[in-house]
Amino acid sequence: MNEANRSEKFGILTPEVLEEIKDAVGAKNVYASRDDIESYSYDMTGQTFAHNFDVLVKPDNAEQISALMKAASRHRIPVTPRAAGSGLAGAAIPIYGGIVLSIEKMNRILEIDSINRVAVVEPGVVTNDLCRAVTAKGLLYAGYPMSTEMSFIAGNIGTNAGGGKVIRYGNTRRHILGMEVVTASGDILKLGGKFRKDTWGYPIMQLLIGTEGTLGIITKITVNLEPLPGKTVNLLAVYLDLDSMVASVAAVVSSGVKIISCEFLDRLSVDVTTKYLSTELPYQDRAEAYLLIQVEGDSDKQLESAYEKVGGICVDNGAMEVFIAESRTDSTAMWQVRQNLAEGMRAADPYTSLSGDVVVPLSEVPKMMKIIAEKCKKWNVVVANLGHIADGNLHPLAMKPEGMTPERWATYSEEFYADVIQEAVKLGGVGSGEHGVGYVKLGALLDSKDKAELDIHRGIKAAFDPLGILNPGKLTPVQ
Amino acid sequence: MNEANRSEKFGILTPEVLEEIKDAVGAKNVYASRDDIESYSYDMTGQTFAHNFDVLVKPDNAEQISALMKAASRHRIPVTPRAAGSGLAGAAIPIYGGIVLSIEKMNRILEIDSINRVAVVEPGVVTNDLCRAVTAKGLLYAGYPMSTEMSFIAGNIGTNAGGGKVIRYGNTRRHILGMEVVTASGDILKLGGKFRKDTWGYPIMQLLIGTEGTLGIITKITVNLEPLPGKTVNLLAVYLDLDSMVASVAAVVSSGVKIISCEFLDRLSVDVTTKYLSTELPYQDRAEAYLLIQVEGDSDKQLESAYEKVGGICVDNGAMEVFIAESRTDSTAMWQVRQNLAEGMRAADPYTSLSGDVVVPLSEVPKMMKIIAEKCKKWNVVVANLGHIADGNLHPLAMKPEGMTPERWATYSEEFYADVIQEAVKLGGVGSGEHGVGYVKLGALLDSKDKAELDIHRGIKAAFDPLGILNPGKLTPVQ
Repeated sequence: MNEANRSEKFGILTPEVLEEIKDAVGAKNVYASRDDIESYSYDMTGQTFAHNFDVLVKPDNAEQISALMKAASRHRIPVTPRAAGSGLAGAAIPIYGGIVLSIEKMNRILEIDSINRVAVVEPGVVTNDLCRAVTAKGLLYAGYPMSTEMSFIAGNIGTNAGGGKVIRYGNTRRHILGMEVVTASGDILKLGGKFRKDTWGYPIMQLLIGTEGTLGIITKITVNLEPLPGKTVNLLAVYLDLDSMVASVAAVVSSGVKIISCEFLDRLSVDVTTKYLSTELPYQDRAEAYLLIQVEGDSDKQLESAYEKVGGICVDNGAMEVFIAESRTDSTAMWQVRQNLAEGMRAADPYTSLSGDVVVPLSEVPKMMKIIAEKCKKWNVVVANLGHIADGNLHPLAMKPEGMTPERWATYSEEFYADVIQEAVKLGGVGSGEHGVGYVKLGALLDSKDKAELDIHRGIKAAFDPLGILNPGKLTPVQ
Repeated sequence: MNEANRSEKFGILTPEVLEEIKDAVGAKNVYASRDDIESYSYDMTGQTFAHNFDVLVKPDNAEQISALMKAASRHRIPVTPRAAGSGLAGAAIPIYGGIVLSIEKMNRILEIDSINRVAVVEPGVVTNDLCRAVTAKGLLYAGYPMSTEMSFIAGNIGTNAGGGKVIRYGNTRRHILGMEVVTASGDILKLGGKFRKDTWGYPIMQLLIGTEGTLGIITKITVNLEPLPGKTVNLLAVYLDLDSMVASVAAVVSSGVKIISCEFLDRLSVDVTTKYLSTELPYQDRAEAYLLIQVEGDSDKQLESAYEKVGGICVDNGAMEVFIAESRTDSTAMWQVRQNLAEGMRAADPYTSLSGDVVVPLSEVPKMMKIIAEKCKKWNVVVANLGHIADGNLHPLAMKPEGMTPERWATYSEEFYADVIQEAVKLGGVGSGEHGVGYVKLGALLDSKDKAELDIHRGIKAAFDPLGILNPGKLTPVQ
């Protein structure tokens, strides 16, 4: 484990401060033994990035968090908020030590309100638990990060999580209507509510989405619910080359057919994951790329015409074959490969970096794919390439070269990604679509932005957190 | 016209400063005669709210605006950005005098990009011009403020404009993907782009939406385009009482039928506007409320089942009759009343205030309606009540009591609205859903927010505009 970074800016967590922390959140919610806290020192980026810290707290409610932040402010102790730890950019790593604040005990669904079509939840509710609960009431929570079985709603907000259904429903921002937030100084803000229109002051709630707990700690959330979707069918299109696959995506997106998902997997992703799952996809001996497409229709007839149209488009654009899932079992088998990709890659190489997450305009995807291939040669790195391709969002996952130490790889992989990111930015894109900046990409972020924008970043941070104690070292450097 | 407010904070626009302004934007783009500038001293709130100012500029491009802001910064001269002047809260009124910056010459549609489904436009493009241009290419710009024939895209962003289709497509925020922005100090920021996922740094673009030109001047915009919608049909449901109307709305919204619009008009709105248009709606002698509902379907059959379902719901919930528009002429006749409401009210009373814009949870709409009626009695004011009711967004439009001077009414009407707003806030709502805060509601905003939130407002303003020269007196008071 890495030692915490040190800064003169921050105070020391003395035994006296620890007593104040216990007073704030209750002694039973404070953990300091190595065994209790070690797994909170890193996230899905892996243990190589772990940082030591002093104390873990698991408060029960906003009032405790408010009292905690007042104590932390008095002594200038860093506080790193943590949701499920499923992040892929290290946003939950306490790089300056101090306090880790886990919201895992605040996990109740408080209300499902059918008239206003909202649910009110605590921040630690697991995404899929919310999905299941509202589906039982005939409604849809449309957030669907690939970590849906693990991630918390507040974590989704922290990265403005995307996932497999963004093309149809938008990312997390679109699903959030209200928030209760504890500020760095311990004030409790109530933002938005059970409504969908709000121009009543600066849009602070919008600003908090995607900011990795650097501006406030979310303690309650009002989410938008949608009517349940129509019927869906899954298609698997198989390609012998990447260009045909990309051409198909552009044509499918502009076809007018309702697409819920459009996921791309390259040969290596599929090989590694099917091996992990002991399963297979058709034509694995020849295929260079697969598209997994989910289409929606309001009736059987409409659905049939939708999947026939999409299938036809794929074939016209060069798919060697298109399979239509005839049953739920078929669909599950197709999606299993996509959903288990991270696990599959980590099984093949425990040091696989999952943080690749560039976004480019859809029209630039072919260029971006070629650039990624070139960069792999330059850096002598093997990547599995996949992504939410209709959003122009690619996830190149880099495997550690044989013989390189994990420590060297931690740095090397991020240098590789930084190189890729600068090319995405040149193509009119950005360095993250849904994983966030976190610990591992701060350097690349700072390199890619103009001074004027970074000055505004600093000003925003100061407006919310003048002492700089909330998740320090994320999104803005510690000054 | 009111004299400009004075503050020691700001410099004087001397002849020397005027020369620098001419150097910045070109002499041909600078206007100072009373005739040229008078109509820029107010907006749709009316001439009673006009404020005198020094000079009007109409730049051609971002570089000129950058040079202008550098000159304004050097001399601390207030700059009030202005779009079409169709705002209903006075956000474009230069209350501290100085410079009014009209973007009306920057009105080109730069690109319609079908592959990435975006358009790139200058800020002064009229909303409906964009709508028409993209429709011709088989795409939809889904922004639809009621001022669509007049408002500019940048103005829509300034208030996060809503309108008649928010229930289906969301408000302006959902349609904006990228922006070029000139800051108070003259830097040019490029935010977002031709993509729909972005967690690359603080979401500055999101923060700029709905902030009335107080944080930056928008000089280029990338908007999202959608596939064209399916077929639509308009229904008019007539009610003898408000409660039945509200019950119908709740049932329609949760029916699963695709609703594009759901607009409410009360008796007075309809009486005044039909008189103005020399037209009529059915049962005007008896009806207390009308709902104008637009439903969507992908096929004739689906559409028929949609409007039959919605019509049935309305009747079940107490509508005395439901009319289905059989033709485009029928539909136009129905919508004309809604679209000409502001003009109709102003024809009946030129001092009608159009700024009423509260939002409450849908479930609280009946309570809010009763409160508005009570407040009308208390203040001895007559209001026409209407709104985007499925969003919980009501527009009570208050008419000046006979015998009251326009000057007194300017203050009185805003005190009336402030009273209504505080009740909306108590019901879990806000004081504006789409018109913004502007000049006329700043007091009500400040009364409704906690100190902690207002401190953050001030910090945000300082981060973007440390001298406080951009649209001073809007959203935060001049310190």
